[in-house]
Amino acid sequence: MSPAVPRDAACLARQVRQGELSARAAVEHSLARIAATDGRVNAFTAVLAERALRRAERIDRHAHRSGLSLAGVPFAAKNLFDIAGLPTLAGSRIEADSPPAARDALLIRRLEAAGAILVGALNMDEYAYGFTTENSHVGPTRNPHDLGRSAGGSSGGCGAAVAAGQVPLTIGSDTNGSIRVPSSKCGIFGLKPTFGRLPRHGSFPFVPDLDHLGPFASSARDLALSYDAMQGPDAADPGCDPRPAEPVLRELGRGLDGLRSAVLGGWFERMAQPAARTAVARVAAALGTRRRAELPEVEAGRAAAFLITNAQAGNLHLPNLRRRPDDFEPLIRDRLLAGALLPAAWLQQAHRMRRRFAEHAARLFAQCELLIAPATPCVAQPLGTEWIELDGQRLPARPNFGVMSQPISCIGLPVVTVPVWGCDAAQPHLPIGVQLIAAPWCEGQALRAAAALEAAGVCSAPVAALN
Amino acid sequence: MSPAVPRDAACLARQVRQGELSARAAVEHSLARIAATDGRVNAFTAVLAERALRRAERIDRHAHRSGLSLAGVPFAAKNLFDIAGLPTLAGSRIEADSPPAARDALLIRRLEAAGAILVGALNMDEYAYGFTTENSHVGPTRNPHDLGRSAGGSSGGCGAAVAAGQVPLTIGSDTNGSIRVPSSKCGIFGLKPTFGRLPRHGSFPFVPDLDHLGPFASSARDLALSYDAMQGPDAADPGCDPRPAEPVLRELGRGLDGLRSAVLGGWFERMAQPAARTAVARVAAALGTRRRAELPEVEAGRAAAFLITNAQAGNLHLPNLRRRPDDFEPLIRDRLLAGALLPAAWLQQAHRMRRRFAEHAARLFAQCELLIAPATPCVAQPLGTEWIELDGQRLPARPNFGVMSQPISCIGLPVVTVPVWGCDAAQPHLPIGVQLIAAPWCEGQALRAAAALEAAGVCSAPVAALN
Repeated sequence: MSPAVPRDAACLARQVRQGELSARAAVEHSLARIAATDGRVNAFTAVLAERALRRAERIDRHAHRSGLSLAGVPFAAKNLFDIAGLPTLAGSRIEADSPPAARDALLIRRLEAAGAILVGALNMDEYAYGFTTENSHVGPTRNPHDLGRSAGGSSGGCGAAVAAGQVPLTIGSDTNGSIRVPSSKCGIFGLKPTFGRLPRHGSFPFVPDLDHLGPFASSARDLALSYDAMQGPDAADPGCDPRPAEPVLRELGRGLDGLRSAVLGGWFERMAQPAARTAVARVAAALGTRRRAELPEVEAGRAAAFLITNAQAGNLHLPNLRRRPDDFEPLIRDRLLAGALLPAAWLQQAHRMRRRFAEHAARLFAQCELLIAPATPCVAQPLGTEWIELDGQRLPARPNFGVMSQPISCIGLPVVTVPVWGCDAAQPHLPIGVQLIAAPWCEGQALRAAAALEAAGVCSAPVAALN
Repeated sequence: MSPAVPRDAACLARQVRQGELSARAAVEHSLARIAATDGRVNAFTAVLAERALRRAERIDRHAHRSGLSLAGVPFAAKNLFDIAGLPTLAGSRIEADSPPAARDALLIRRLEAAGAILVGALNMDEYAYGFTTENSHVGPTRNPHDLGRSAGGSSGGCGAAVAAGQVPLTIGSDTNGSIRVPSSKCGIFGLKPTFGRLPRHGSFPFVPDLDHLGPFASSARDLALSYDAMQGPDAADPGCDPRPAEPVLRELGRGLDGLRSAVLGGWFERMAQPAARTAVARVAAALGTRRRAELPEVEAGRAAAFLITNAQAGNLHLPNLRRRPDDFEPLIRDRLLAGALLPAAWLQQAHRMRRRFAEHAARLFAQCELLIAPATPCVAQPLGTEWIELDGQRLPARPNFGVMSQPISCIGLPVVTVPVWGCDAAQPHLPIGVQLIAAPWCEGQALRAAAALEAAGVCSAPVAALN
């Protein structure tokens, strides 16, 4: 284990390209950190030491290593991505009976083609239906910054693995907030690209109308680097953007020029606890944001996301709900059953509301490039939390951690979540995330703002001490 | 009325640009032809003589007329497009009680910005739910090539107006075949672009997940010309392709170079009457097509389109179905009621099937650029036809005129329909259309093939004699 292995993907890859660090040393460092910390964090559901070391050796022998943008970068994937030779669990017990995947998911292949090295699979809420990664089958993922608290979900393993310094990079999915909630609670950077941007081939679906894939990392630059390695059309996926990839990494240096931003008021202010408002205010001050904007009908937009999620997921799992109901995660079974029984008329109204809500957002983007809102209403909660208070109402906690993220993913907008620290007076050691929301297909603009916030010292992703 | 007014939009616009013909003369010619023929054809539900003549005068005074690609071209729009000052009927009696539209639909504005002149609104099946334009409120549109027969639908007025030589250009919509079926039955060219390509602002919806807008004309060149004037993103429509327009007109000269094509077998052969097979064989011979391809699960893909259509349309009209059921077209009321009662589970399976069917098509497009299939199973049928025989089965006629078109629009593929003549031994005076189907976003390839077929003399759109 070398203390000299950089924490971030860009620096690590540069050292490997230049021969200052071997890919093997990078992988060994990652495996050692996982071994030392994962008994407490529980981010990993599989560690692929042998595969990773073999691959590291190939990279180290690779004559053209110098062309690999992610040379030697260890990464891990939420266990809903196919990994050749393993059954794709998607957080469930049921899928453990599925045959092993024949091939890695497309995004894993693309990252490895850029030199990255898969070291393992990560914990999640069953079938991605949750915001807490309290997985009853394998136990909860714990927040590396406070082990009694949740890492967020459903991609909790992705957030925790980066926050704990186990790997520089992870990939997960976001249907209603599953990249943004764990990024917020774990104090790291997360990118949920535009709906349809990254191909989903070889990933276990949750809600095909809403599922997004994307990366988690400790800097905006690492998000851009990994996103560039993953983006580009997939001829086999008609739902994926057919345009050739336009790299976003080189945009990062352009700063805030031409980026008009506005803080989202109304719902996004009302439902935020003080820590979330403080974080937004700090980000807005650093971006020079003076405008406020209001998105109409947020609550109805969020309700649409709930119904679409509920109905599609319920239908997807109906055969297993009939055959083996007791094998489901108790935290999601009732919701899936309810979803399987919805009348089509409700679902049609939800889709109609969603189109209308997207038009509201399009009107705001005619006036500015970025919208700013909290990523979660509060910092990481203790594991087992059943209730939270938002806007003076006592609400069931688990579904409402998505109160800020769900309306945005419902209409597929790209979002970078950036971490802000010390905003909660009672829990000054905990981070909270802020969403930088851009118009469809404008990931680069949100990433530029995130990079500017890092440069200004407002956002950062320190490794958890894990004492 | 000048006999010298060219029938096609490209020639007409060139003459107007060069000052050889006035826009006023072009509009007067069109109005005179409508007056002389529409009592028999019944394509128009409103003729806007005053508006059109005013606009013609502006064009004739226009200093920069030489830059207008459609200078002076009269056109008409299916009556589901908003026209300022008129209620948008969408073929119904109910919407006659709606307030008049405040503004023209976006596509009408774009065509007029290119110099075209709106002369009227066109008949259609109520709410676009039909393939025959047998509209009980205003009577059927009659096929200009045989007045006892249907012009197809739901954009029957669009097909008949071009076939009758009333206007060089019309615009309509296609959800399950409503551009392709009337193009086929009226012997003209029609373009159904990729789903999401043309903005739908200001048009009455039928099935938002499946609705496409597009042009009808008497040549592939006119389709390209009008499509280029209409394409391009619409910031207010998040469902519309955000890419800047890439003109297709200049591609037409490129011929068949690089266009590998295949005839679709299986379903598309089995369900075709001999005339449709003959038309496909002639087109394939002219394109040098030797390959055959089979799209798996066509019948299930079509069933998915049926269910999605039924449920979305039923839900959209539910308030009026409750309030004033007797004002609906009797041919569609029962289907709308059935759609309003579907369980969500059926709809979910339909959407899942649709995604899977799109993947089947994507695999075919990895091997060739164009797929060839009939546009309808048979030539235009007598008005009132209740039954047809396809593949040895006696089937209800009205829904089954879409048997060839519906599976293709279900997955949003772009299609140019081209007219072939003399294929039906019993009805040698009637045309039938062939679909040239391209991969998503590749309209230009289908248009190139259509232009080549015209050049080879295989496809043409003569004006109906209307004796």
